[in-house]
Amino acid sequence: MLFVELIRKKRDGKELSRQEIEAIVSGYTRNEFPDYQVSSFLMAALIRGLSRAETAALTDAMLQSGQVLDFRELPGRKVDKHSTGGVGDKTSLILSPVCAAGGLYVPMISGRGLGHTGGTLDKLEAIPGFNVNLSLEEFRAVLGKTGCAMIGQTAEIAPADKKLYALRDVTGTVESPYLICASIMSKKLAEGIDALVLDVKTGSGAFMKDAKDAEFLAGLMVETGQRMGKRVVALLTDMDQPLGRYIGNALEVEECIQLLRGQIDGNQDLMDLTLELCAWMFYLGEKSASVEEGRRLAQDLIASGKALAKFREMVAIQGGDPAVCDDPTLLPQAANVADIVAPRGGYVTGIQCEQMGFASVVLGGGRLRKEDAVDPAVGIVLRKRVGDAVNAGEAICTVHYNDAARFAEAGRMILAAYSFGSQTPATVRPLVHKIIRGSSAKEA
Amino acid sequence: MLFVELIRKKRDGKELSRQEIEAIVSGYTRNEFPDYQVSSFLMAALIRGLSRAETAALTDAMLQSGQVLDFRELPGRKVDKHSTGGVGDKTSLILSPVCAAGGLYVPMISGRGLGHTGGTLDKLEAIPGFNVNLSLEEFRAVLGKTGCAMIGQTAEIAPADKKLYALRDVTGTVESPYLICASIMSKKLAEGIDALVLDVKTGSGAFMKDAKDAEFLAGLMVETGQRMGKRVVALLTDMDQPLGRYIGNALEVEECIQLLRGQIDGNQDLMDLTLELCAWMFYLGEKSASVEEGRRLAQDLIASGKALAKFREMVAIQGGDPAVCDDPTLLPQAANVADIVAPRGGYVTGIQCEQMGFASVVLGGGRLRKEDAVDPAVGIVLRKRVGDAVNAGEAICTVHYNDAARFAEAGRMILAAYSFGSQTPATVRPLVHKIIRGSSAKEA
Repeated sequence: MLFVELIRKKRDGKELSRQEIEAIVSGYTRNEFPDYQVSSFLMAALIRGLSRAETAALTDAMLQSGQVLDFRELPGRKVDKHSTGGVGDKTSLILSPVCAAGGLYVPMISGRGLGHTGGTLDKLEAIPGFNVNLSLEEFRAVLGKTGCAMIGQTAEIAPADKKLYALRDVTGTVESPYLICASIMSKKLAEGIDALVLDVKTGSGAFMKDAKDAEFLAGLMVETGQRMGKRVVALLTDMDQPLGRYIGNALEVEECIQLLRGQIDGNQDLMDLTLELCAWMFYLGEKSASVEEGRRLAQDLIASGKALAKFREMVAIQGGDPAVCDDPTLLPQAANVADIVAPRGGYVTGIQCEQMGFASVVLGGGRLRKEDAVDPAVGIVLRKRVGDAVNAGEAICTVHYNDAARFAEAGRMILAAYSFGSQTPATVRPLVHKIIRGSSAKEA
Repeated sequence: MLFVELIRKKRDGKELSRQEIEAIVSGYTRNEFPDYQVSSFLMAALIRGLSRAETAALTDAMLQSGQVLDFRELPGRKVDKHSTGGVGDKTSLILSPVCAAGGLYVPMISGRGLGHTGGTLDKLEAIPGFNVNLSLEEFRAVLGKTGCAMIGQTAEIAPADKKLYALRDVTGTVESPYLICASIMSKKLAEGIDALVLDVKTGSGAFMKDAKDAEFLAGLMVETGQRMGKRVVALLTDMDQPLGRYIGNALEVEECIQLLRGQIDGNQDLMDLTLELCAWMFYLGEKSASVEEGRRLAQDLIASGKALAKFREMVAIQGGDPAVCDDPTLLPQAANVADIVAPRGGYVTGIQCEQMGFASVVLGGGRLRKEDAVDPAVGIVLRKRVGDAVNAGEAICTVHYNDAARFAEAGRMILAAYSFGSQTPATVRPLVHKIIRGSSAKEA
């Protein structure tokens, strides 16, 4: 069948077969189909939508476009977590060693920060010497030895996604839940995992700001994973203010080490979410009989110091300096530190989360374009969060910076992101909005 | 504004401004935008549709992408006709000389046949020596001298359409009434005409087989033309069986000459439609006070021989042999002629028109791909049409052919295209289904 016939079929809202979708993805990956046909197809798919079967077929075709890892020789369940991205979201750095310390294998392939959101790879690279560019063989070796390994996307994994995403980015076809689902799930399921916990963000700092859109995507990913024989659960979680108190690469590593030491220090939200994600990973990975038991297991692993020891072990085996776990001043330090103070007294009623992410980008801590470099040292420490009382002139944030002009701009953005009122907000949004386990009981 | 933002806007069903549409068309024509962005935009436009204002803006931008002819120095109205294409549709060759003989200027830029439909240029080129590749200066000179001139699309006229159509052809974005309207109207209005009569075909041999689709397109073209200050009318006409009795390039020229001589010979439908189109051209071109008066004028011009004389003059001035007007055997002749006979007696109840067009392509008289050559001599003469009584073994068609294998295949197709019954069909569809004059009175 001619490709143009497949475009027409999707354009007219008809369902493509698994074979037809496979032909499109493999043809494009092998450079047999030109970009202009694929972009037309993607636009038709975005507007007309894909059925659940088409979404699963697309995910599978993208997954099969490259190497699919297989860790069956390792004696234990392989479980991973994926977040749709946010500001201050550093749970991966904590939950990986917690889960590995609890006997799971966590083969995590992560991304870099882009736009207002941070990325796990940038955070890891703030640790002096840490190497995220392992070959797949090195990845396998680290995973087998440590139980967790964290690397970046490689050319071998889901090359179709890389090519499709680059095209979507410039043709207005990013914002499709079906295409987003296939992109995320193809890469994650190529990791050779048995189970996956999805952290789908919603709120002002999320890509999916609308809760209904986020829930739809979550349901799609859960069903797609289940259709592909995996245990999958999605947590719909809040990204209406930054997660935790630190934004910035080295700063977030420092915060993770604090939590791995059990020092909560006003960071209950980050700890709660991390424990919840660990709990589900243990449960789906059959290390606990219930989610509740999984949560207690995670708490114990932190309290006993085993999780921090595992983090230290992973840092060392991936070339990083494990001494940062004991002395955070070994992490990159910004030249200057200054406070942003409240213009009035009262209560913090909101923190525009996306703006806080962009303030961090302005400082140099993030990137607007893929090719930009990041400054690991800069960032923002939130002193006041939503619901906190504040006096006029009191610090709401502390900014770590290396450039005065960037500091001035970021300071303006931070002030604009905060809103104040004379009363504390009636309700602070719960951290976990909803848990989506799919229509079947496959993951249970 | 970034192009991707314009794609998103149309994708989300919003209306683009005239300036935004102009930016897309001129940017693409100047090769500033890649095909993959434009195809994504076209798919969004196809599915979401365009407003009337967007359609007019797109038409205008495509028109302005090239040279816009201006024949104001010629003393009379410039009027043209455009048909959406069909089988046996040769009215242009008759109405051009009729209207020119009546004092109108007809600057006609036509196309070639593709798929099951024939093209005016291929028919003209069946006349030995006829040159359709005049420069625009030569075109102007012929028009000024003769009142009619017939050439092919040139690179100077609406280059945006050429580029866009080539892309639409391979990206599933041909079948949009908005894009079809802009494509047709941009080329026609670049001819520097005051008025345009549209012959929008519907039925089994038309591109728009559904009458509602055809009527929608007709309304769109009429309104677009009126928004651009032209007098436009659309006739919704029947293409459920071939128009006239001859299909094939030289054969159709011969049939036109017969009609210009006033020899109707079972061809009342072709004569009626041609007169109707001429009538509207005279009326919109202000050569008659009514359509009815325009029809009488056209009849008189044929009866007096003035129309044939004008045809002879045009053939001669464009390099063709005017003697074909007196001796049709000077046109290319096929080596063989054979009848296809009725397998049973009764009445012809239908002729699948598209199949008849493809039978002509099989003989070599048309083309499936733009680069194919055509054989001017081959074709089909219909001996029996819908409603005619026929005896078993009686000829239903006479086939002119140069290749026995092609004849065998075309013969099978012709037999399959005809349907027979024991009674004549209760109603034969009227030739002109509807006349669409737009919502305003601008064309009246």
